[in-house]
Amino acid sequence: MRVRRNLARDPGRHYGEDMNAAQPVPGFLPSYPPSDDPATLRLIWPQWQGAGYANAGALVPELPTPVARRGYMAGARALAALLPPASGPTATVPVDLTELAGPDGPEGSAGGIESRSAVLAGIDAALRTIDAHPGIERVLTIGGDCSVSVAPFAWLANKYGEDLAVVWIDSHPDVDTPDTAYNGYHAMAVTALAGRGDAEVLSHLPAHIDPSRIAWAGLHEWEPDCDEHVSGWGITAFSPEDLRADSRVLTEWLRATGASRVAIHFDVDTIDADEVALGLGRVPGGLTSAQVHRLIADLGQAADVVGLTVAEFLPRELLALGAVLAGLPLVTG
Amino acid sequence: MRVRRNLARDPGRHYGEDMNAAQPVPGFLPSYPPSDDPATLRLIWPQWQGAGYANAGALVPELPTPVARRGYMAGARALAALLPPASGPTATVPVDLTELAGPDGPEGSAGGIESRSAVLAGIDAALRTIDAHPGIERVLTIGGDCSVSVAPFAWLANKYGEDLAVVWIDSHPDVDTPDTAYNGYHAMAVTALAGRGDAEVLSHLPAHIDPSRIAWAGLHEWEPDCDEHVSGWGITAFSPEDLRADSRVLTEWLRATGASRVAIHFDVDTIDADEVALGLGRVPGGLTSAQVHRLIADLGQAADVVGLTVAEFLPRELLALGAVLAGLPLVTG
Repeated sequence: MRVRRNLARDPGRHYGEDMNAAQPVPGFLPSYPPSDDPATLRLIWPQWQGAGYANAGALVPELPTPVARRGYMAGARALAALLPPASGPTATVPVDLTELAGPDGPEGSAGGIESRSAVLAGIDAALRTIDAHPGIERVLTIGGDCSVSVAPFAWLANKYGEDLAVVWIDSHPDVDTPDTAYNGYHAMAVTALAGRGDAEVLSHLPAHIDPSRIAWAGLHEWEPDCDEHVSGWGITAFSPEDLRADSRVLTEWLRATGASRVAIHFDVDTIDADEVALGLGRVPGGLTSAQVHRLIADLGQAADVVGLTVAEFLPRELLALGAVLAGLPLVTG
Repeated sequence: MRVRRNLARDPGRHYGEDMNAAQPVPGFLPSYPPSDDPATLRLIWPQWQGAGYANAGALVPELPTPVARRGYMAGARALAALLPPASGPTATVPVDLTELAGPDGPEGSAGGIESRSAVLAGIDAALRTIDAHPGIERVLTIGGDCSVSVAPFAWLANKYGEDLAVVWIDSHPDVDTPDTAYNGYHAMAVTALAGRGDAEVLSHLPAHIDPSRIAWAGLHEWEPDCDEHVSGWGITAFSPEDLRADSRVLTEWLRATGASRVAIHFDVDTIDADEVALGLGRVPGGLTSAQVHRLIADLGQAADVVGLTVAEFLPRELLALGAVLAGLPLVTG
């Protein structure tokens, strides 16, 4: 590797000058100290079935639809590989590769949910995985589509009751129901956590969370058929503009709920796609990556973070490289 | 996740229609059958010290220089996580996180090579790792910077002698020497393989390869101080234009060498950055990803691929997400 380019740089950009080489390097997780809470379960859950089949194809037109939809698996694997070691347990929820939705899928959409059997099996498998680790007080979930928060947050709601609040950092409200047009389960995640929507999904969950203890952070995009759910279910909404300068309105809301514990969902599409496109959709106008970092850090000052989910990461570059390597000598069988 | 967008799609793009769901999905490596050669060593080598310190900062201005330079580690980890299982052994070459070059580095550049001690230690460690696996006939190396090909290819050259040819798929020739301006060892990889350049580096290698059995594929960018090396060392050069329509000139060259085995180096910056930017530098005008795939597949038809290296992958999206997550509750200690 060799580049014909002017190497003169702005010395103001030079990070090394004010940095102790022994300190961790921001943005490079393996150099960070290990996660040190033995009561935190690291749950790797590369579920992809929640993404709408047609939607995945439309939003990532450069890839075949099945690759785009399953691309979350690559995101979860890549992110898990980047995490520093943890003193608590790490477990992976098994996820099937079989496509049940779309033109190839034998199941299609049932009651507004594509790949329904895989979705329900995933909830059960995730809850079983958490229950298999006695003494767990906190769960870090690495997804996977947005719905990977539903099982662990419902588990936490069952454990902590009214002492748990949920902050849903997302461009979208995820309040679809079987009556709305969209068929991907990842758009129904908040619906299920709020105890609404599909009865079969709810029957698999140990608890739900009162809408008064749920807030959106960074919300700014949804379909009109969800208007009533956004305004009428009693969930508090903070837009990106509400949170750009500081996190105060959110931490004040959290204090007002009376909950001392918080579960935080982070859909990476909340980050303005004009800064960096990390999600399945490229959504402009969101929070900056620095603002999201600050938001989660401030919530960690205001309450005990017992749940954190990173969801919807679709690593386009990695998938593009995978396409080059697929089927080549020495790489695959 | 939920997107306000027209879901109508071009049916011509629809991949599922002509695809058997039981078949592997191109671009999604975990769905591929396991790599099935027990004599192939999968060598994960997240070496980053070969990248020039100033160059890394200049080429990835959105990240702090140490993050950009060490970003190869994230690339190697992510790619390794995406590979399907292998019947042969997998080993990881240990790589230190300590920065020895740049303003913070105690070592800086010595004899035109930054972080020289780490570079030499890396060569030794990689050769030890390969030697620790008796019966190995082939090596798949997942880097890391471009120089991660040097040790395994020199090992293969020692094993196969004149029956080994090397194809270096790269936008750049990597023929710097201590006398040229650039100080990153990754720009000296072909130099070392050709038995030239720094004497101390050469003293750590078991063999070199005659330039008549080395070819560049996709070469189109270098600094003027390397002109003589590109034209005078006897290495054959094929530009992107030579290879766009088919691989014939390259496979004919390979046949003419008389070698029945080939080691292939793939620097991901060979792929036109206007299609997808995968490398440290964003180099336009290269081969397409489909052309690179075809090139390696065709080489696999023409000869026994005993070495393949994927190098220089810098996953910008993953690093951006890492910056958001660094130091947050439940993620790092």
